Amino acid sequence: MHIDIISVVPGLLEGPFSHSILKRAEEKGLATIRVHNLRDYATGKQKQVDDYAFGGGAGMVMMIEPIANCIEALQKERTYDEIIYMTPDGKTFDQPMANTLSMKQNLLILCGHYKGVDERIRERFITQEISIGDFVLSGGELAAAVVADAVIRLLPGVLNDETSALTDSFQDNLLAPPVYTRPAEWQGMEVPEVLLSGHEAKINEWRFEASVRRTRERRPDLWAKSGLGESDLKSNKK
Amino acid sequence: MHIDIISVVPGLLEGPFSHSILKRAEEKGLATIRVHNLRDYATGKQKQVDDYAFGGGAGMVMMIEPIANCIEALQKERTYDEIIYMTPDGKTFDQPMANTLSMKQNLLILCGHYKGVDERIRERFITQEISIGDFVLSGGELAAAVVADAVIRLLPGVLNDETSALTDSFQDNLLAPPVYTRPAEWQGMEVPEVLLSGHEAKINEWRFEASVRRTRERRPDLWAKSGLGESDLKSNKK
Repeated sequence: MHIDIISVVPGLLEGPFSHSILKRAEEKGLATIRVHNLRDYATGKQKQVDDYAFGGGAGMVMMIEPIANCIEALQKERTYDEIIYMTPDGKTFDQPMANTLSMKQNLLILCGHYKGVDERIRERFITQEISIGDFVLSGGELAAAVVADAVIRLLPGVLNDETSALTDSFQDNLLAPPVYTRPAEWQGMEVPEVLLSGHEAKINEWRFEASVRRTRERRPDLWAKSGLGESDLKSNKK
Repeated sequence: MHIDIISVVPGLLEGPFSHSILKRAEEKGLATIRVHNLRDYATGKQKQVDDYAFGGGAGMVMMIEPIANCIEALQKERTYDEIIYMTPDGKTFDQPMANTLSMKQNLLILCGHYKGVDERIRERFITQEISIGDFVLSGGELAAAVVADAVIRLLPGVLNDETSALTDSFQDNLLAPPVYTRPAEWQGMEVPEVLLSGHEAKINEWRFEASVRRTRERRPDLWAKSGLGESDLKSNKK
């Protein structure tokens, strides 16, 4: 998988992409990520990339030409499955979207900044608009890093243990169960006995029921999507 | 505002916090962010911070002691308004939460990693569990950076133009309207005429109606929360 990211603050993305699984994915040859500085595609002496909004008001707008120049230059090198714009009014990112994107070959991600990009860029180039949630960030860079991380960790071979991602929250519309490690007792707080029993079937049952309980308590909306009901709980099966 | 962040991959956060508004907020003396390396609080020669999960299964669990040591050391220096754990099963982060957190003085954010932290850490120390969305990341670091960014940009004086944050998406449960900048015509694509009119009342009306249209089309759930109805649209008022 190859991901190109267009940003006015490329330095912001250096840390995320030179550490953790994103770096490991690069080293293993499973993914490449390149961050492109939008200013390199600006025309004019000032290397201007933003300008005042038509109609007035606070906040600058990202200009068309530098973005168009950058996208068109990158399109000469490869064909993109999706040209994504990170924006608070995009479709809310979730695990199914991460799963779908993880099966693509080439992604281009444009990071919004300031008040956003000129609407005509969205109309002309963008194939998918993604928001990571109902909050506003100072730019799309962290959002792009979030999408890249969520997608790349799903590529086979990126995580040390392939089964690890499958037991995460959301893969089955259930939250993950509580986890414990040594010591078995810490300041009077003990690990649930069943987890020390070595009885695999009972452990799996406990985890499933803990997942269900947590999901129902914290996220009734997810629970409704899970397609599960009371009758799926072992404790209700006699 | 002061934010402490505890992480096993502190380098991942260098980029985000040394660029953009987070850096500017530090320079203006409006916010300080310190990233603490969890390994510095590990005991034993190996500086181990994770261990196998009781009950077996894929993925490592973050151990209690290093985290407890770190939190207790930081608590000697200041009292925290909230001790936050970034986790996919936390409460979904949104703009009202960002607004609330922006009024706090001291925040401590613990980044989950691997399969998460030992449940007893959550029971003993954590006052708020936050998820940035229904997807799984390789660690809580990017999520912590997202929260820090969303919160710090709301502090008075951080953004160049204070009115800028108030016209963002979500502050009033409406998505932002489209924005345009020069040139007025680009490859046959024109800016809506009203925005060039200089007629402020008409421009505001156009923007409000564009916000409403976009919110209703893309996010009927937000529209329902806005408390607005057909009768609030000028075009429906005769």
